Amino acid sequence: MSAHALVSFLLAVAAIIVLARAFGWLARLVGQPPVIGELVAGVLIGPTLFGTAVSDWLLPAEIRPVMSGLANLGLVLFMFIVGYELDHASLRGRGRTATSVSIGSIVAPLGLGVLLAGWLAGRHDVSDPLPFALFIGAAMAVTAFPVLARILTDRGMVRTPVGGLALASAAVDDVVAWSLLAVVVAVAGADGANPWLPLLCVPYTLLMLLVVRPLLARVDTARARAGRLTPDILAVVLVGLLLSSLATEWLGLHAIFGAFLFGAVMPRTRAGAAEPSGADKLRVETLERLEQVSVLLLLPAFFVLSGLRVDLSTLGGTGLLELAAILVVAIGGKFAGAYVAARLNKVATRPAGALAILMNTRGLTEIVILTVGLELGIIDERVFSMMVVMALVTTVMAGPLLSLVYPRRMVERDALAVQRPEVPPAGYRVLVSLPGGLAPAPALVDLAADLAERGAAAAGHSSAEVVLSRLVPYPARPLDVGSGLSEELLGMTTAMGELAGLADSVRARGLGAPVLARFSRDPEADLAAQLAAVEPDVLIRGGEPAVVVALGSGAEAVRREAAEFAASRGFDVVIASGEPAESRTSGVTGG
Amino acid sequence: MSAHALVSFLLAVAAIIVLARAFGWLARLVGQPPVIGELVAGVLIGPTLFGTAVSDWLLPAEIRPVMSGLANLGLVLFMFIVGYELDHASLRGRGRTATSVSIGSIVAPLGLGVLLAGWLAGRHDVSDPLPFALFIGAAMAVTAFPVLARILTDRGMVRTPVGGLALASAAVDDVVAWSLLAVVVAVAGADGANPWLPLLCVPYTLLMLLVVRPLLARVDTARARAGRLTPDILAVVLVGLLLSSLATEWLGLHAIFGAFLFGAVMPRTRAGAAEPSGADKLRVETLERLEQVSVLLLLPAFFVLSGLRVDLSTLGGTGLLELAAILVVAIGGKFAGAYVAARLNKVATRPAGALAILMNTRGLTEIVILTVGLELGIIDERVFSMMVVMALVTTVMAGPLLSLVYPRRMVERDALAVQRPEVPPAGYRVLVSLPGGLAPAPALVDLAADLAERGAAAAGHSSAEVVLSRLVPYPARPLDVGSGLSEELLGMTTAMGELAGLADSVRARGLGAPVLARFSRDPEADLAAQLAAVEPDVLIRGGEPAVVVALGSGAEAVRREAAEFAASRGFDVVIASGEPAESRTSGVTGG
Repeated sequence: MSAHALVSFLLAVAAIIVLARAFGWLARLVGQPPVIGELVAGVLIGPTLFGTAVSDWLLPAEIRPVMSGLANLGLVLFMFIVGYELDHASLRGRGRTATSVSIGSIVAPLGLGVLLAGWLAGRHDVSDPLPFALFIGAAMAVTAFPVLARILTDRGMVRTPVGGLALASAAVDDVVAWSLLAVVVAVAGADGANPWLPLLCVPYTLLMLLVVRPLLARVDTARARAGRLTPDILAVVLVGLLLSSLATEWLGLHAIFGAFLFGAVMPRTRAGAAEPSGADKLRVETLERLEQVSVLLLLPAFFVLSGLRVDLSTLGGTGLLELAAILVVAIGGKFAGAYVAARLNKVATRPAGALAILMNTRGLTEIVILTVGLELGIIDERVFSMMVVMALVTTVMAGPLLSLVYPRRMVERDALAVQRPEVPPAGYRVLVSLPGGLAPAPALVDLAADLAERGAAAAGHSSAEVVLSRLVPYPARPLDVGSGLSEELLGMTTAMGELAGLADSVRARGLGAPVLARFSRDPEADLAAQLAAVEPDVLIRGGEPAVVVALGSGAEAVRREAAEFAASRGFDVVIASGEPAESRTSGVTGG
Repeated sequence: MSAHALVSFLLAVAAIIVLARAFGWLARLVGQPPVIGELVAGVLIGPTLFGTAVSDWLLPAEIRPVMSGLANLGLVLFMFIVGYELDHASLRGRGRTATSVSIGSIVAPLGLGVLLAGWLAGRHDVSDPLPFALFIGAAMAVTAFPVLARILTDRGMVRTPVGGLALASAAVDDVVAWSLLAVVVAVAGADGANPWLPLLCVPYTLLMLLVVRPLLARVDTARARAGRLTPDILAVVLVGLLLSSLATEWLGLHAIFGAFLFGAVMPRTRAGAAEPSGADKLRVETLERLEQVSVLLLLPAFFVLSGLRVDLSTLGGTGLLELAAILVVAIGGKFAGAYVAARLNKVATRPAGALAILMNTRGLTEIVILTVGLELGIIDERVFSMMVVMALVTTVMAGPLLSLVYPRRMVERDALAVQRPEVPPAGYRVLVSLPGGLAPAPALVDLAADLAERGAAAAGHSSAEVVLSRLVPYPARPLDVGSGLSEELLGMTTAMGELAGLADSVRARGLGAPVLARFSRDPEADLAAQLAAVEPDVLIRGGEPAVVVALGSGAEAVRREAAEFAASRGFDVVIASGEPAESRTSGVTGG
């Protein structure tokens, strides 16, 4: 590298870092994801405003290959992270509604997109109408899981039913979008010299699932033996990721698919496992290591370079018409599909509207897909530019529209409603609050069921229930890569699985067993709120020792039974008396 | 980036990571620093054995610029780390001997190198003999601080006098070598279009010291306010580093000087400060963040690419003669200079030999300097290749030669001898063992002096001394960048400064005050060894509470006085009686 090239290169790297931080900060300032700022930075220094003056000075031709290399590394890392976060994200147990919303939110924009593409194809430099139409349809159908997860958690919406629904639907959409894109790319690539080559991606996927996935379990074992993520283990992961990426690129698919697939076959905790395993530590440590360099330099290099390719200066009157059509199809199709599906499944109007807005966020996922389409020559630079604007608009509009359609006070109200159990307050109620990963949980639930049965009999209640609650800690600082929340989403999935198992054992005894699982930044305060909402007769709090507080009638009997239970099971229980609601909580906290 | 280039690029990145880990592992297996393995990997796949066959396949021309960009980022980061570790490394208080050794170990190889260059210049493609001669001289005079520090600590030699001497001398050599190189590069660059441009490096250095250094103190403040190294703070550091690098590159010096200088002006703890400050946390956190990516990818890219440029296939008979001459001058000059200077300062023969071997390690520093010389056209590829072999030989030979000249049992003996105080065992002796950063240290030293005075008077001893000891914890896993030990070396410097201050106050009272400071992997076991070596009458151990153990005669009086002292100063002291040597320690440990 010549001295001149080295100066340009160092300057470009510094400029990318500065642009990304500055515009990312501005984006956060107006309540948008930082990545929107990075993309906008690229658009601003790009041809739309300055022709090639600024970009040629900042990224002269001799260093474009280097910056493009950095951007491609960023892209591959990003797709690996998306794949790695994959199955932890699909919150189980949402069932039919999520599937309907997902189908609706894909089919409507996909169909409208293909129709639109028929119109656009005649007006643009389209080499082959079929892949073009499929590509536009797929690009319209995208929902970006990482951005959506971040918006939901930032607004506290994960605690509401619609939040969980949106996460589950988006997780499905994400996988469908990547699969669709793979098909489109394979169809487009089939025109080339080796038309059969993309078909090899089928045996390649099987190889990854059946051979590489079991082999990667050894990475998990190695980490557990070393007690930390050693540079050697990280090297194995990185090299595997790179090889998988270049394999799919070589097969005529894009490198992103290999990266995504490698992330998807990384070791993970079996669904329903009681405790976060070594696989989770492996994931968190790997993402933490990759976070620094990818967030500071590599991903910004990708997004700024993507932004640079956007040229709106040549749009003109007909271009504006096309852009408007794209926006209408993208926003309208996605909104209508998700909204109608939600309403058909009896979701109320406002939550259904919020859901439809959320499914419209296309964020990074769309930019990645569009870049692939541009590089493969499926779309031209003008379509690319308009589609990027569409991705920006649909992502940016989510925040303000949500505030309008589903304001914070409604979020709070719905979140509280979830915490209120369904049986009438006349019944006898035992609340079991369980911190994560505590072994004696089944025993405590047994005790709770005993107390509920006897309490109901003694007080002459016709019904009794055991309310099972777990507060999943929400991090003060989520990671800056991907959704940054894979650990927490996994914690939530695990908690829900565990609680469901415990609830089954309670229901087998003929008792009610509602389940509450939610994120919490302040478990003490949230337990107090839960007490006020649930109004239990007895509170059992897991811990060492566990605490049993008799709050309602028959305190004496509760105490006696709890003491017997503790003695027979051989573990410590602190038994306290209830006090008025306010001091209750502090009494519990102090115990 | 075309699909073909992307495949090549991903393959090359994967290959670099695999080569670096595999050859680094092999190097460690035979007791060599991993970086030697990375360099050898480059040489092995390079033109010497395979012509350009392997390297053209692995690094085709179209991706050379990208890999060169990564390598340059690695180089700049490495020099930043070297600069950042700088002043913590120069262990103070070694004085005249270290200065002599340093001068001797620079002047002798420098002078011989310049003479050799006169001979070589006629046989090679040398454009300008003056910079060539200066460059060869400077390259001969190099000692690599990071590799030397690692060898010393791995062998436990930091505890011996010769280890400390080697560290101090190498730290001086390091700074002199970079300064010499800067002069050479400026002289070489002065032939160019703007002969006055390199002179601007003088005001640039002043700017960095007088303006940028105070500004960077704010980075420290920002870190302290955030409580951690945020991405924004890391971005500021990285951007500053990149801008400083490109500034010196633009001035006609090489980018490495700007990176080194930026590292040197980063905030650091004032010398003699009692406790590690926020500046140390900033350094450790910054280096930890940079470690992952630089150790796994960027530095290996630099060293493998450097190795690739080595071509020994065209050496021939005359080349072998030149190589032999280079080895004789490099090894002989450095050895003679360091050995004679050490002997003149009354260092014994074996330690002086060990010192001379240690000063011969040229490691990474030499490779960086040689690459700069090659890129600036000061030396040709053949001289470069021979000098790289010299750097490899001098670094690789250090381990085996040290085992021969200064085997482990002698290291242990000398380390123990340092712990044995100088006054005859007839005197009354109080050992004060201080953990780091404890406030009441001066008060405990007061008590020790009181006890020593009275104990000596009571027992009729003519002399008394207070032995001051601090065991500095040595990490289980040093960082993999730079020496990886800047925190520990700083801890040692700080400890020695503190103990020296305390010793002065003891000496002012007419008592002896030997000082022991050493690294320890197991402070409990090492305290036991110290007790056996020092044989004190009283042991005072800092802590909360402090522990006073009367081990020798007059235990009753010691106890009384310690109790009075504790009462009057208002802090807790546990007073125990001495037992036979073996159980003593466990008694102390238990207290």
